[in-house]
Amino acid sequence: MKKVVVIGGGTGNFTVLRGLRNYDVELTAIVSMADDGGSTGILRDELGVLPPGDVRQCLVALSDSSRLMRSLMNYRFENGGLQGHSFGNLLLSALEKVTGSFERAVEEAGKILKIKGKVIPVTAHEVRLRMVMEDGTIINGEDNIDSSIKIDGGYKQMYLEPHPQADPHAINEIMNADLVVIGPGSIHTSLIPNLLVEGISKALRDTQAKKVFVVNLMNKKGQTTKFKASSYLAEIKRFTGKDIFDHVIINGGKPADDLLHRYKEEGNLVENDLLEDPRLIVANLLENKMVEVDKNDPLASNRTLIRHDAHKLAKELMGIVDNL
Amino acid sequence: MKKVVVIGGGTGNFTVLRGLRNYDVELTAIVSMADDGGSTGILRDELGVLPPGDVRQCLVALSDSSRLMRSLMNYRFENGGLQGHSFGNLLLSALEKVTGSFERAVEEAGKILKIKGKVIPVTAHEVRLRMVMEDGTIINGEDNIDSSIKIDGGYKQMYLEPHPQADPHAINEIMNADLVVIGPGSIHTSLIPNLLVEGISKALRDTQAKKVFVVNLMNKKGQTTKFKASSYLAEIKRFTGKDIFDHVIINGGKPADDLLHRYKEEGNLVENDLLEDPRLIVANLLENKMVEVDKNDPLASNRTLIRHDAHKLAKELMGIVDNL
Repeated sequence: MKKVVVIGGGTGNFTVLRGLRNYDVELTAIVSMADDGGSTGILRDELGVLPPGDVRQCLVALSDSSRLMRSLMNYRFENGGLQGHSFGNLLLSALEKVTGSFERAVEEAGKILKIKGKVIPVTAHEVRLRMVMEDGTIINGEDNIDSSIKIDGGYKQMYLEPHPQADPHAINEIMNADLVVIGPGSIHTSLIPNLLVEGISKALRDTQAKKVFVVNLMNKKGQTTKFKASSYLAEIKRFTGKDIFDHVIINGGKPADDLLHRYKEEGNLVENDLLEDPRLIVANLLENKMVEVDKNDPLASNRTLIRHDAHKLAKELMGIVDNL
Repeated sequence: MKKVVVIGGGTGNFTVLRGLRNYDVELTAIVSMADDGGSTGILRDELGVLPPGDVRQCLVALSDSSRLMRSLMNYRFENGGLQGHSFGNLLLSALEKVTGSFERAVEEAGKILKIKGKVIPVTAHEVRLRMVMEDGTIINGEDNIDSSIKIDGGYKQMYLEPHPQADPHAINEIMNADLVVIGPGSIHTSLIPNLLVEGISKALRDTQAKKVFVVNLMNKKGQTTKFKASSYLAEIKRFTGKDIFDHVIINGGKPADDLLHRYKEEGNLVENDLLEDPRLIVANLLENKMVEVDKNDPLASNRTLIRHDAHKLAKELMGIVDNL
């Protein structure tokens, strides 16, 4: 069975994993540990645990348990001292306390959720994401970087503090993979934080695995406003040291005008400027469903009205896998 | 297989269930819904859920899952907005929100914990316990009643508000039982709240099942200070309308003097004044273990330094079952 490693964090990862889990591949999710916003941020600050949010989403994506269990994991308490916490985050944090390690917690949560595949935090160290701007000021923390609208102006550097070693399992999975998938996802806050971990970029350069990048559908205003497909590749290259990708998947479908209009305060469609690039795979990857009713579904927030269809994307990825 | 129904709430129930689950009997726990203290009280007030605490303890007692899962259920968060909440309470409350009913929540939690037997909340209604004192004042809520030191002076009446109907499953289980076990446990706050639910006392009078009462080891100062074994039976009779018990189990062992000394601020040993009663079963039921290290174990609090040994008690109960 072919081994596919998906690197990221957030809902982009969720989509890729949820699509691929229907196929006969060995799946591993390597997950960013830089999240410090929302429920995850509060748990980090108050309990001193490692960030559970992105891991939770990957576990749910790979879960073979009932729809109820998956809804439970994403359920957010609405009142009182628990307000805003998703149940799955609390599960991971309590398991970390009871087992004494986040790694064991992820393993045990994987058993409870009957996951197909593996979820590996990119590092076992507690880290915070920093971005050094052109004027020398520093934006501290993933959540602050994610909400900044000044990143368009460029930045000097990003790093994790303290500088962490990768989990050896993560390196091992990359080295033994047949295919590594990076993207879609917030480039500065979900993708790059993995590349900042010591050992990951080198493993990506060294592995015999094919590497595929999935370009985002939309730019994010103030962050990637004028990005084209090539800008995303250039941004990744900045941290991997060389262009590592063998394939680039990009959406070729056009969202309805009213959707683009509704979305315009947040950002614009990513332009495909790679038309001559032989690595390019273009397909309509848009989800047609307009409305989601399950508020426990992480894909159902307003931000994702224009989003990848998990099954369409998985079909393109499997097209690559089948030719390996 | 013989059907044994255990009625109560709190750690007394836990001990009986944990002991009996090692035997070949069909176990059902019927659980009080009057708890409003601690983590349970906060969840009731903030989230509007039914009280999870006593149900959680019964689920853990009947669980066939790993020791880790049982520790997880009893794990209490130590900081921030989550402080004091046990993870199992949060599981039940989140499940109640996701499924829309506490009954479904208990059922699903039972699956996750792989319980042997059934756990049935005595009523599906949201109720509060009230105690009307001799002077007409009312103590509101189980937690306040549990911490009052004025109950020794006697009380006029106890009731649940609003007056609830029993869950039909609870009635059904009592009617079809071979043996019903009541006690040990806090008489006013764990045992009687079950008898105040419409239909329970009648079922206890009507059922063909044998009924056994397990007398507490210790009185509680200010609540049952001068109680003897007969006082407990009289207190139950006040609510069942007649003396329903076919057997009465009481401890015959004597705790070490230093233990009694350490305990003396909380209460004294219950005196056995039923020596002539033919229903009496006397045995050494004391746990010898002095120190518990697992702080997630509900039996490990200071209050239970003198406590029933789950296995010794189960052996006496099975002596009754085997003669049915």
